[in-house]
Order: sequence, then structure tokens, then C-alpha cells
Amino acid sequence: MESLDELWMARAIELARKGWYTTHPNPRVGCVIVRDGEVVGEGWHVRAGEPHAEVHALRQAGDKARGATAYVTLEPCSHFGRTPPCADALIGAGLARVVAAMQDPNPQVAGSGMRRIAEAGIDVRSGVLENEARALNQGFLKRMETGLPFVRVKLAMSLDGRTAMASGESQWITGPAARRAVQRLRAQSSVVLSGADTVMTDDARLTVRPDELGLDADQTELASRRQPMRVLIDGRLRVPLTATFFQAGPALVVSTQDDPNYAVVGHELLNLAGLDGQVDLLALLSELGRRGVNEVLVEAGPRLAGAFARLGLVDEYSIFMAPKLLGSSARPLLELPLERMSESRELKIVDIRAVGDDWLVTARPV
Amino acid sequence: MESLDELWMARAIELARKGWYTTHPNPRVGCVIVRDGEVVGEGWHVRAGEPHAEVHALRQAGDKARGATAYVTLEPCSHFGRTPPCADALIGAGLARVVAAMQDPNPQVAGSGMRRIAEAGIDVRSGVLENEARALNQGFLKRMETGLPFVRVKLAMSLDGRTAMASGESQWITGPAARRAVQRLRAQSSVVLSGADTVMTDDARLTVRPDELGLDADQTELASRRQPMRVLIDGRLRVPLTATFFQAGPALVVSTQDDPNYAVVGHELLNLAGLDGQVDLLALLSELGRRGVNEVLVEAGPRLAGAFARLGLVDEYSIFMAPKLLGSSARPLLELPLERMSESRELKIVDIRAVGDDWLVTARPV
Repeated sequence: MESLDELWMARAIELARKGWYTTHPNPRVGCVIVRDGEVVGEGWHVRAGEPHAEVHALRQAGDKARGATAYVTLEPCSHFGRTPPCADALIGAGLARVVAAMQDPNPQVAGSGMRRIAEAGIDVRSGVLENEARALNQGFLKRMETGLPFVRVKLAMSLDGRTAMASGESQWITGPAARRAVQRLRAQSSVVLSGADTVMTDDARLTVRPDELGLDADQTELASRRQPMRVLIDGRLRVPLTATFFQAGPALVVSTQDDPNYAVVGHELLNLAGLDGQVDLLALLSELGRRGVNEVLVEAGPRLAGAFARLGLVDEYSIFMAPKLLGSSARPLLELPLERMSESRELKIVDIRAVGDDWLVTARPV
Repeated sequence: MESLDELWMARAIELARKGWYTTHPNPRVGCVIVRDGEVVGEGWHVRAGEPHAEVHALRQAGDKARGATAYVTLEPCSHFGRTPPCADALIGAGLARVVAAMQDPNPQVAGSGMRRIAEAGIDVRSGVLENEARALNQGFLKRMETGLPFVRVKLAMSLDGRTAMASGESQWITGPAARRAVQRLRAQSSVVLSGADTVMTDDARLTVRPDELGLDADQTELASRRQPMRVLIDGRLRVPLTATFFQAGPALVVSTQDDPNYAVVGHELLNLAGLDGQVDLLALLSELGRRGVNEVLVEAGPRLAGAFARLGLVDEYSIFMAPKLLGSSARPLLELPLERMSESRELKIVDIRAVGDDWLVTARPV
């Protein structure tokens, strides 16, 4: 029983993953309905405003849902959002059993979905492949639990930890496979965030370019449906409105100043001056959380990325490591001046994998 | 036939590996003798002056060697060294077939061993699992082919490529498993080489400490039989003869000065001043090659390790990467000042593996 539950839940997780690039601000959810050892319905949530995974699966199952078991990667909702509660739909379909990978941390649900199902006399179980299910929705879960989005800092460095020559010369540290992987990180994020230096030096747009994702046709089509919100930290409003960045679409600019011209040409300007005269990054993350942002990808230089690190705001580093030495005069990974060994930041490396000739190191603060 | 040859050769390579810590200055060699699909003799070379792998295997096989096939990881020798030629021993034993993984690059052999065997009417084959066999003896092969030893530079760094705080504080960047791995790198090397700064700052002995190898009892016993030669680069003779380093056993000191006191207390002093007033590292490697040194492990600070890198003398980097950030004020991996991206040193990462909580990155210059 145990292993069969895990087997079907693994399939539900596989389905949920199809929504990797599209469900923002909703969670990625998959559902499988099984009767007599046979799949009678499958579904996954595509995007906000459209039916939830359970509804797709129930529609496919039709009458065969009666007496069947539903496997859902997240506790079914019990509240009216943009769609009616899935808990009621599952009850109405006459299911015999509902298995959830994890409780929904959304305070509007938080156990009440499964409770409602159980009170209807349906057998329930929760916590099957919970870790795998949590990994689908790190951003959504953090936002529900803390109000803040999940912050992933992407960096590209040489094996000796350098990001550019002292002169600023930096193009092509990593190879094409790494650049495709960065495009996919952008596409899965709610927000791509950068700073004035990066945007000006690289003439960066920070958009998702579908033909550079390296995905198959179906996934490319899905990933193309939504551009992440682009956020520019520009304390002194140095990036001109004529920059490529602003031509590429509407952006949110965060500054310590006001300027009505941004709104005139379709951009939003947010004045979030901190006490130190810099942009208040924590206040910004709170604001993004309020706006339903699950995952923020920080693509910035050593200074801005270092500021996130110094403030302890980083949930994960995605470090693309190129097999080369840029030498001891080159620029550091992060502007993070520390005096003593005891101040060093402990991380846990959760994954290392080859990406073309480069390597992607995924690490999290301990 | 092909795959059977590979199967038996794989066993011969496994045997050769038993000599990992002991064969210096000889190569690591294994031998399997097979008759009618059954192993009748096995052997591996333990250390210089003792019988070669083939002799051990032939002794074990006895009369059963007649009509059998011998698998050897290196072409059998055809010259009188400290032991008589193995080619003659194989011929005398009446073998039907001899399979070698690779030709012996030793100019005293270089194909003549297999030729001699073939001329005696024995069926021969060469080149089975050659890459795997070459990996056993990178140092020996490089020395035979170029006269120089294989230079492996061991470094310990944080994820952001730093080796110590600006103050020099550096203890315990990596964990106990990484330190055991370093002990094993020392034990497999002919020479452990360091500089005055490292020896003085760390009060380093650079010896192999058997209880810190993390090997089983048999392997520990083997690795304990031989201490690598310790070489200290000390251009201005700054390390006092009273230092722990000199108390730990005889050492070779390489300098740009002379001083008869070293010899008096059992150390050798070599004056190898280069034209720039520094120790001539290439001349040193040539001298070590002449002395039969196969593998040199450089355990030095950013300055000396950087000098090897600048001169293009590094064959392999063994970089232990700790999951922490030491920050942008900390010391670099290598003193290697480069101006332009085009000067950056291209490497190939040949292996990345977890070593406790740290990671070992093995990289080679392209």
C-alpha cells in the first residue's frame, strides 16, 4: 500500500512539474485518479484563473471517479478563490480515498480541505512524498509561511571564484548550456531582479527568450506564455529610460527617489528608501510577497548580490562555475567584506551537476 | 573475446591499485594468469627491488601457467634492472598468450618486451583498457615521456574561491574527510612540496600520519612503509632548522643560497637560483625527475602555488571546496594577476565528488 501510494504520488508530482513555468502566483499541483490499479484521470494546474489539477483529473475520470482514489500533490482547497473549492468537487465525485502529499500552508486552507473530505466519510492520508512535493513549490510555500518570496541568487564565476576582470571585462565566462539554464531559471521565476550596474554594463534586458530555453516544443510554448516581472534596483535613477531594458517591456523600478516620468512611459517607480539611504531590500521583498511573487531570481553584480547576502536574504545560490582561472586581480563573487573566520557564511551544497563544460553548484545558507 | 579480455584486465588493474602507496619510483602493475576461464595466478608489484607483478603471478600459477593467458597492466620488461626481465619469465613459463594494457614508455622497454614475447611464438595483444591503465601511473608515464614528474597542486578554498582571511587566519576551512583525503594524496606521492610561508604559518610537518589516512588496516600498513620525500622551497632560508618541519625527518631544501649547516643535521640543501633571483622551479622538477620522482604534491600558499600556475608547470589541481563564503577581503586561491579575459587559464574539470561536507574538484589545464 505504502509503495503503491508513493508510485501514484510520484506520477502526480511529474504532472505538477508540467506547470513549472506557468502557475505563478499559484502553486504547481498535479493530480492522478486511480481505480482498481488503473489511472482513470490525470490533471495539472496550468495557470491562475484556470481549473485546478483536481478538476482536470475529475473531468477526465467522469463516472470512473466513483470509488476511486485521488492523489494530489497539495491538499485540495476548501475556499472559494477564482474557482470553487476542490474539496467539494472531490466529495461530489464519490471518491473512496484522497491522498495528499502535503498540507496547504495557505492560511485559507491549512488542513481544512482534508478535514472537510474526511468529514464526508472519505478515507484520507497526508504526507506521501512530502519532501518531493515541497520542492515543487519552494517559493509559494515560503510566501505562505513568511510573507516573503524565495530568493535565488544566480552567479557565474570562474573556478577561482571570480566574476569579471578588474576592468569589468566579463562576457562569456560560462558556455551556451549554462546560458540556457539561466533562461530556464528566469522563466520559472515570478520576478527577475537586477541592479543599475548590471543593466548598464551588459545592456541587459533580463527577459525570457523562448528560443534560448533549450526546452522541447510543448515546454517552450508553456514557458513563453508569461514573462517574469522585471525589477530594477536603481537608487539614484541612473539607468536612462532610453535603455534597452526599458524598451523590452514594462518594469518595476525601485529607488530612493521619485520621478513621474517613469509612469508616463508605462513603468512603475517605487520609492523604498531605507534608513541608510539605500533601497530597503527587505521592504521590497515584503512588497513583492504582497503582490503574489513566489520566486525572485537575483541576477546582479557582486555589489547588489553581496547586499542580499549581507542582509541574510538569500534562500539559494545557483552558481555556474566555469572551468577556468580568472586570477587574483579579478572581481570577487560577492562584495562581502569579512574580517574573521567566525564571520564566514556557512552553506550547504545541495546539488552539483554538469551543465555543458560548466558546473552548476546549488547551495543554501545553513 | 574482446569483453573477456577487458574483464580480466580490469581485475589486473584492481590488483595494480594495491600498490598505490608503495611502488615509487616504479610503476603500479598488476597481473592475472587465466587458464580455461579460471584464474590460476595473481600478482602485483609491491615495491622497488621486490619481484614484479608477473613474477608473483607466475609463482602462484606454477605449472598451470603452461598454455594460459597472462594479463598485465603494463608491457613486461625486457631489460635487467634490479630484477631479471619479466618477458623471459613469461616465455619460460610456456604461456600461450600475453595481453598488455599498454606499452611501457620506459625507453629501456618501449615495445621490446612484447616483441620478444611475440618472437617466442606467443600470441600477443596490446591496448586493452589502456586509458584505465594509464590512470594508474600518471606520474611514472609523464616522467618517462618528458623527464619531469607529474605535478598535482592541492588547494583548499571556500565556495567563493578564498583560502584564508586577509589576516592569514585559515585553520579548518575544510572538514575531517577532506583532511583524510589530503593525507592519502600525500601518501601516494613521491614528493610533498611546500614553501616557507606555509611551513612557518602552519608549523607544518607535511608527513603522512597513518592514523589519519582513513584506510583499512591492510592499506594503512602499506601506506605506512614509505614517507614521501619532503621538499621545502625556501629561497632566503627563512625557516629555522629548529622548526617542527625539520624535526620530523630529513628534508630537501631548495634555495638561492648555500649553507653548510643543513647537511650537518641531515638535510640536503640545493641551490637552484634562477635568473630572476627566485628558485628555478623547472630546474627543480628536472632534478626531481632525475631522482625518480613520479608524483609531486604541491601543498603551498597562493604565492608558490600561483608561481607553478604562472609557469605552466601544473598537471592537475585537486581543489577541496568548502561550502562557505569567506568574503571578498579574503585571500585568493592563487596569486595569479591577469589583466584580460584572453589571458584566463582554461581548465577541464575531470571529476567532482563529495568528500564529507566538502567537494573535491579535480581539474587539468587544457
